[in-house]
Amino acid sequence: MASKLIAIVAGVGPGTGASVARKFSKNYPVVLLARKPENFESLAKEINSSGGKAIGISTDVSDEASLKNAVETIKKEFGNDVAAAAAIFNASGGFLRKPFLEVPPEVFAQSLAVSATGGILFSQSFLPLLLNGVKQKSEHPPSLIFTGATASVKSNAQMASFATGKWALRALSQSLAREFGPQGVHVAHAIIDGVIDIPRTREWLKDLPVEAKLSADGIANDYWWLHTQPVTNFTWEIDLRPAIEKW
Amino acid sequence: MASKLIAIVAGVGPGTGASVARKFSKNYPVVLLARKPENFESLAKEINSSGGKAIGISTDVSDEASLKNAVETIKKEFGNDVAAAAAIFNASGGFLRKPFLEVPPEVFAQSLAVSATGGILFSQSFLPLLLNGVKQKSEHPPSLIFTGATASVKSNAQMASFATGKWALRALSQSLAREFGPQGVHVAHAIIDGVIDIPRTREWLKDLPVEAKLSADGIANDYWWLHTQPVTNFTWEIDLRPAIEKW
Amino acid sequence: MASKLIAIVAGVGPGTGASVARKFSKNYPVVLLARKPENFESLAKEINSSGGKAIGISTDVSDEASLKNAVETIKKEFGNDVAAAAAIFNASGGFLRKPFLEVPPEVFAQSLAVSATGGILFSQSFLPLLLNGVKQKSEHPPSLIFTGATASVKSNAQMASFATGKWALRALSQSLAREFGPQGVHVAHAIIDGVIDIPRTREWLKDLPVEAKLSADGIANDYWWLHTQPVTNFTWEIDLRPAIEKW
Amino acid sequence: MASKLIAIVAGVGPGTGASVARKFSKNYPVVLLARKPENFESLAKEINSSGGKAIGISTDVSDEASLKNAVETIKKEFGNDVAAAAAIFNASGGFLRKPFLEVPPEVFAQSLAVSATGGILFSQSFLPLLLNGVKQKSEHPPSLIFTGATASVKSNAQMASFATGKWALRALSQSLAREFGPQGVHVAHAIIDGVIDIPRTREWLKDLPVEAKLSADGIANDYWWLHTQPVTNFTWEIDLRPAIEKW
Repeated sequence: MASKLIAIVAGVGPGTGASVARKFSKNYPVVLLARKPENFESLAKEINSSGGKAIGISTDVSDEASLKNAVETIKKEFGNDVAAAAAIFNASGGFLRKPFLEVPPEVFAQSLAVSATGGILFSQSFLPLLLNGVKQKSEHPPSLIFTGATASVKSNAQMASFATGKWALRALSQSLAREFGPQGVHVAHAIIDGVIDIPRTREWLKDLPVEAKLSADGIANDYWWLHTQPVTNFTWEIDLRPAIEKW
Repeated sequence: MASKLIAIVAGVGPGTGASVARKFSKNYPVVLLARKPENFESLAKEINSSGGKAIGISTDVSDEASLKNAVETIKKEFGNDVAAAAAIFNASGGFLRKPFLEVPPEVFAQSLAVSATGGILFSQSFLPLLLNGVKQKSEHPPSLIFTGATASVKSNAQMASFATGKWALRALSQSLAREFGPQGVHVAHAIIDGVIDIPRTREWLKDLPVEAKLSADGIANDYWWLHTQPVTNFTWEIDLRPAIEKW
Repeated sequence: MASKLIAIVAGVGPGTGASVARKFSKNYPVVLLARKPENFESLAKEINSSGGKAIGISTDVSDEASLKNAVETIKKEFGNDVAAAAAIFNASGGFLRKPFLEVPPEVFAQSLAVSATGGILFSQSFLPLLLNGVKQKSEHPPSLIFTGATASVKSNAQMASFATGKWALRALSQSLAREFGPQGVHVAHAIIDGVIDIPRTREWLKDLPVEAKLSADGIANDYWWLHTQPVTNFTWEIDLRPAIEKW
Repeated sequence: MASKLIAIVAGVGPGTGASVARKFSKNYPVVLLARKPENFESLAKEINSSGGKAIGISTDVSDEASLKNAVETIKKEFGNDVAAAAAIFNASGGFLRKPFLEVPPEVFAQSLAVSATGGILFSQSFLPLLLNGVKQKSEHPPSLIFTGATASVKSNAQMASFATGKWALRALSQSLAREFGPQGVHVAHAIIDGVIDIPRTREWLKDLPVEAKLSADGIANDYWWLHTQPVTNFTWEIDLRPAIEKW
């Protein structure tokens, strides 16, 4: 029965998402969701060739039909009664750090589409599988984890196109924590406050000491810790930053 | 020159919006925006017949073209160099207080369309007029005021369809306050925490003492107070609730 | 009957406290509390000679006996049934912006003594007079207003000796707002976020434009506005900063 | 060298403090601080007889001299160059849930003495030992962890005597996190939101399901997790509540 417990990770670029997927793949088959196959293909291969199991599904989390298709694909692969141990929403819309009047409405639209609408549709798609996990008495309470940012709690000048979506996502996570905690699903929100040390930022960060850079693997460990909290001790929110960080 | 300073109020139903429009019409011609003409027609008549000036423009704040049309109509009426003393965003999308998995995605979409996208498009449309007001050295700093709710800071179970939009709107207001305050525009956010005594709620509230009901005219007074704060004393956020209110 | 309504202001140095006292003296006899007579003497003289009424009482708000003495002096002056329209706590303990391990425990003790204990004792001393004001049906709801600071909501490095007291004071104000609002007393907290333009800071601020400096008279106006809010529209918290302020 | 790394726990009653001490005693000799010896004697015995090492020191954290004595006792026991891997402040002053005007000033004084002053003096006493731990390159970053409560972020009516101290403690922890994080010490604050299942509350909670009761051992696990976070991933604040909890 436990074999039917899967983990779903949305937003698996080369950073946090990949680390989280690797971490959870040690215990569960993982489903990797990303719009572009190149974002999950090599990761799926890596996991599958190192003893885990991963499938990637090209998915646009802001599109209801695309998520329905993802759920169907999952059921085809893992059975109609598939249950989830974890669903991790790590997707983020783009944004533009520019004077407000120079940011095209499309940028806001896209940010809201991914961070807000994406979070909502992702949750509506996978909460039924997480509730199945509760019924199957999964070892750890099924977990729905959202990746936030500094901009989830602070909305700086010229950052509105990022913050509007991120605040909406945080609101979603808080409401869901209150509604689904009593049903046995652990809903959590992580405020990632700092620059993550990933391939894209590595060159830029290269002169900084290690304690000034957030570790993506570290974030994955923390998500795993959240996942393993028992029903007696649920954390809704954690913040995460490197030791050397001005905040 | 002062005659060109107008106030724009979006979301003029029979409650707060109408009170705010009446209050600001004592000093400025007011532009009333609502989707349905029946929401502004009698109010415009009332203001026009009592010595003020008001025009209503049927506008969907979630629709860029509709707002462009509103701006054009305003310029036709008040001149291309029209300036605004105040722009007040009082619109709110509908929501459904139901278990999350029973709320249709359309409800979330509409809430985000009005509260988040609407707030963004409204701000992009009228900040140029407010900045014109700064240039014209308006008596009071031009003000952009957003109406929030309890759900702007607390996201309760089954309230996600309301809170997601409202948190996004609050994020917008904070970012704009930081960006446009230094340019002379006063951006503020009001957390309306309690049931407002308006025709729609009157029957329901009739057994409560007066100090348990928020006054819409009182809110309008508070918005006017925000508007009259000088550049030396800007408030970004106030909360408002009746004396008898559990919070 | 209205003649018995007084306003009490604690912490009347040459800045905010003096402005607040002047403002409230237009409507009420004011009682000025400060440890050192030189902090209220000239202000009392100024108010008394310009048509108002003011008495100063040398008081240490961190000392229960000293506050008891102040209450007795007030009753001797205004009668045993004296009622208060407003009590404003504007006192602040000193602090040291230094590495934590270099701040002597006495500095923390003094900050807590004034900001925390002082706020508590001041409230216990004057809430009975404010409740008398409710009974006397004062024109405006009797108001208990606390002066906070940036450090009331953000505790920066090396600022613990200031923030600990200020967070405690904010906690006090929130609890009292919830307990005494339903009894008709309006409890409010103002987050003063910026440098106030007062004699002590004038030289230092002289090159800044006016919109970069908080006005003490402006703060007094805002406190007066809080005081005049009716029972239908109580604000617990406002923030106040100059238009040009990084936050 | 590692043998010189100790953990200090203040506030070891029969609940969270004891669980935390047991947990950390698996890796470090633990120093148990409590005012009354009966609060640490049996716990010290238990730890010592099960392969760990514990010493208890009768200490009043609100008294500078008492803490100085504790530090001296520790140095006598573990050497002058003793270093700490963890210092956990779990003490709390008493409080009275009563109408504000019925709470004697002594109750507030005692709450502030323990939660605020106690937190400050504890931190000043043991940060030097934690910084020693950084120098000794302890396996996990030396950690200073504070136990908070619901009342650390929400100050309800009649709860001021608890909240004032707890808000002050949270302010302290935030300032210290910002100052000492960059120096390698991990400062964290845990918001314990719910009733902990300990001997004192057991009778009262006996009809509740397990998922409605916070586990003290669970809290200890979470503190241990905080302690093991690497310098790349510091959490300042977590909240902890049982799955079934209204918040």
